[in-house]
Amino acid sequence: MSASGFASTPAPPYYAVIFTAQRTGPDDGYGAMAEHMAALAAQQPGYLGIESVRGADGLGITVSYWTTEAAIAAWRRNAEHAAARERGRKAWYGRFELRVAKVERAYGRPAPETTEPS
Amino acid sequence: MSASGFASTPAPPYYAVIFTAQRTGPDDGYGAMAEHMAALAAQQPGYLGIESVRGADGLGITVSYWTTEAAIAAWRRNAEHAAARERGRKAWYGRFELRVAKVERAYGRPAPETTEPS
Repeated sequence: MSASGFASTPAPPYYAVIFTAQRTGPDDGYGAMAEHMAALAAQQPGYLGIESVRGADGLGITVSYWTTEAAIAAWRRNAEHAAARERGRKAWYGRFELRVAKVERAYGRPAPETTEPS
Repeated sequence: MSASGFASTPAPPYYAVIFTAQRTGPDDGYGAMAEHMAALAAQQPGYLGIESVRGADGLGITVSYWTTEAAIAAWRRNAEHAAARERGRKAWYGRFELRVAKVERAYGRPAPETTEPS
């Protein structure tokens, strides 16, 4: 993730993986694993960026952005990622929802103090 | 938003509006407006649900789900919503990014204590 917390994505189309999950129980390695997975994802072909927020109640939304569905599928097959998902299901998450979506339109405003509005 | 914080969405395809934004400055009516907009959105044709999280640093991700792009466009034209967006740009948000995406695949796990796994 960038220091700003925003992903710098190109003009659409590209893909988003929207992962909404309720954390449960103690940390038990969760924070370290989440950081490691974010760093590992960033090394994968087709990775564009990630945005992730967790609230005080443990509900979190993480959106990762990818060039193509094939890039998402390849990341899904990554062995370390698969092991982390399995541990997440068993130890760290209650309810979760994962949605794969094709971004068709996008617009935004950069941080006012650092960049001119586009 | 449902009490769980999760949107109960149907089988894809449907649409997601991913809004990532950095809150800045004092509340100044923000919380009340956000609640009012969530309630108003829920009354619109084609609304499916919303998931929203804000972290302690003020970065937030809100994903609203809609049946069609036409439903998103109609909500965008809503006068109260347009006024709230304008106020958000001026008073409440620093950087923001909005992405409209077509959800193509989805899966999840219900809360273990309340629902059988699907």
